[in-house]
Amino acid sequence: MVVQKFKDMLSAKSVIRELSVKATQRGKEIGYDNVFDYSLGNPSVPVPKKFHDVIKRLLDETDPLMLHGYSESHGIAEVRQAVAESLARRFDIPYTMDDIFMTSGAAGAMAHAVRAIANPGEDIITFAPYFPEYNHYVGGAGVNLKVVPADTTSFQINFEAFEAMLSENTAAVLINTPNNPSGIVYSTETIQKLADILKKKSAENGRDIYIISDEPYREIVFEGVDSPCVSKFYDNTIVCYSFSKSLSLPGERIGYVAVNPACEDAETIVHMCTQISRGTGHNCPSSVIQLAVAEMLEETAELSVYETNMNILYEELTKLGFEIVKPGGTFYMFPKALEEDAKVFCEKALKYDLVLVPADSFGCPGFFRIAYCVQTEKVKRSIEAFRKFVETEYHK
Amino acid sequence: MVVQKFKDMLSAKSVIRELSVKATQRGKEIGYDNVFDYSLGNPSVPVPKKFHDVIKRLLDETDPLMLHGYSESHGIAEVRQAVAESLARRFDIPYTMDDIFMTSGAAGAMAHAVRAIANPGEDIITFAPYFPEYNHYVGGAGVNLKVVPADTTSFQINFEAFEAMLSENTAAVLINTPNNPSGIVYSTETIQKLADILKKKSAENGRDIYIISDEPYREIVFEGVDSPCVSKFYDNTIVCYSFSKSLSLPGERIGYVAVNPACEDAETIVHMCTQISRGTGHNCPSSVIQLAVAEMLEETAELSVYETNMNILYEELTKLGFEIVKPGGTFYMFPKALEEDAKVFCEKALKYDLVLVPADSFGCPGFFRIAYCVQTEKVKRSIEAFRKFVETEYHK
Repeated sequence: MVVQKFKDMLSAKSVIRELSVKATQRGKEIGYDNVFDYSLGNPSVPVPKKFHDVIKRLLDETDPLMLHGYSESHGIAEVRQAVAESLARRFDIPYTMDDIFMTSGAAGAMAHAVRAIANPGEDIITFAPYFPEYNHYVGGAGVNLKVVPADTTSFQINFEAFEAMLSENTAAVLINTPNNPSGIVYSTETIQKLADILKKKSAENGRDIYIISDEPYREIVFEGVDSPCVSKFYDNTIVCYSFSKSLSLPGERIGYVAVNPACEDAETIVHMCTQISRGTGHNCPSSVIQLAVAEMLEETAELSVYETNMNILYEELTKLGFEIVKPGGTFYMFPKALEEDAKVFCEKALKYDLVLVPADSFGCPGFFRIAYCVQTEKVKRSIEAFRKFVETEYHK
Repeated sequence: MVVQKFKDMLSAKSVIRELSVKATQRGKEIGYDNVFDYSLGNPSVPVPKKFHDVIKRLLDETDPLMLHGYSESHGIAEVRQAVAESLARRFDIPYTMDDIFMTSGAAGAMAHAVRAIANPGEDIITFAPYFPEYNHYVGGAGVNLKVVPADTTSFQINFEAFEAMLSENTAAVLINTPNNPSGIVYSTETIQKLADILKKKSAENGRDIYIISDEPYREIVFEGVDSPCVSKFYDNTIVCYSFSKSLSLPGERIGYVAVNPACEDAETIVHMCTQISRGTGHNCPSSVIQLAVAEMLEETAELSVYETNMNILYEELTKLGFEIVKPGGTFYMFPKALEEDAKVFCEKALKYDLVLVPADSFGCPGFFRIAYCVQTEKVKRSIEAFRKFVETEYHK
């Protein structure tokens, strides 16, 4: 007599997960080095050695009862203080520790942000292409996720469709820039226009529409790309951050909610997060990991490899005839498939040991995602596989 | 326009938290050493040094991309395997890794267990005195928590009241043995009788009523005390475990769900937990912490101090005229207050720098909780404060 809703979810398999399993299986046959596995967004560069040094020092020098003791439900005070100071310095926004709530990665941050500002039955609007887990992050709180169709020429915002979707039932808008899966960074023009529309609509509705800004790729922006800080353009912005990508720590489940101090109810929202946690069983990330990242706030893994990989793939795939909007950040690229059904296209690619993800579940059929967080040497070797794939299947 | 429900929760302060703050404030005035702070269940003995050695070895010898990479959503396979083997060996129940789901402590485990087997609007029955956070663990899933009044003579189960409360709407029974706050361990007779009633009622209802067995104090059982393994008595048992108390790691947020392999849908429940996580933003505990506890499954902190403290307090407080059911485990004791209103009693105790918690929020008015996870030397010094308190206030 288990709960049917969750049992039913088991039959809906994740496309990405299934492809990853296929890649692993194929790897056992021909060696994983020979499988061009572009399926998963798992970072490919290690955390800086300093992170391990910090943990060892904490283990050696801190009273274990303090180090491993219950932290405040907001997160460890000195960690929140350090995060606030770093954000304030970098983005020139007067964050204090009262605006910071420590979470289990961006997923944990989103779970709190959504519940804090949207009632069950209200709408949160996001923009295709989008990370498919948003369906669960938003739906899990009983809130409706509405998806604005993509502007496939630029992967900026399709404002016409967006304005038509805004209503009195809109509690928030959820954006992800730099974007998974497109790799696109929203421009200053885009963010300014979004902020203007939301200010106007909030006034019309007599209630603030929030922006939830999901920013795990904030530190992975390529040379010369305009990457505006969303919170500078719109007061009612709640940032959901994760150290998973910037420090290559996805398994450690560490991130935070940062509420713009100019936001109405800023401090209240952070306190509310401690109440939300009680009902979801969250209760803070690991105390050792909290303390360790607090000393790594101005550091990142060696992220430049992602830009190197992007440039190789963009140049070579464009030559092979792919239409691609050039990524401005992340470790994703989002080309148009060479036939209408991207699932068929990606199925065929598997024959050439290329593991690509069709974008139907990202709300953008006809496109596919390349997660190029792999060794550059392998990226280079994959070009020949792409060439064979395209020539054999599409230039017969 | 934040969500009112969570905003309203901010005004309902936690009695325990408030008392802990008072204890800290008083500590600043007279030195914390002179405050007999019995308010919080924070362990007072450190994790074994081996835990730190294991973490250091993991940091030194594991590929950081593997060590800190995304783990499977069930938890790291080798960790689940180790947990299953340890449980199977210790309790002679054929657990396999398919029965284990890694969580952020017992709170995370309960959040998953409740959602897996109770639909919103159904009932979960628990027994006073009970841990007040159960209201949130259960209510946060939209499920009703029903509380059976205490049998204050033994703090075993009040079966008459329990049977009257069982209905077709009962999805599960939530027990906590050894118990917070009473310190009582349910006897074999109690567990057997509970199992018999549930088997009969499940057959009558045509649906299985589950036991959710919250077992963070499983390893803290005193000499000679009968402490039966619940899962051996009832197939449909889901254990929620935490390493917070046994290894003194509450801040690391690490525990698991262990579904009795004899349970109907055992493997399905564990898979369902991965789906539940997606909606609550949980997504696994820290990978380093998972791997480290996997090597500590047969170890505990030096827990004997709690029995030492219990014996001192039980003997001395009984002499002072307190009525106490002698604890069989945990680090809690649950005497009857010396006047009807335990809140007034505990307020008076503060004048003697004794920080005690009135049990109204535990569903048992007229009693108070002593959390004796403090240094034994301090426990001894506190006896004089208890004597002064009792003589001055109640033997005038």
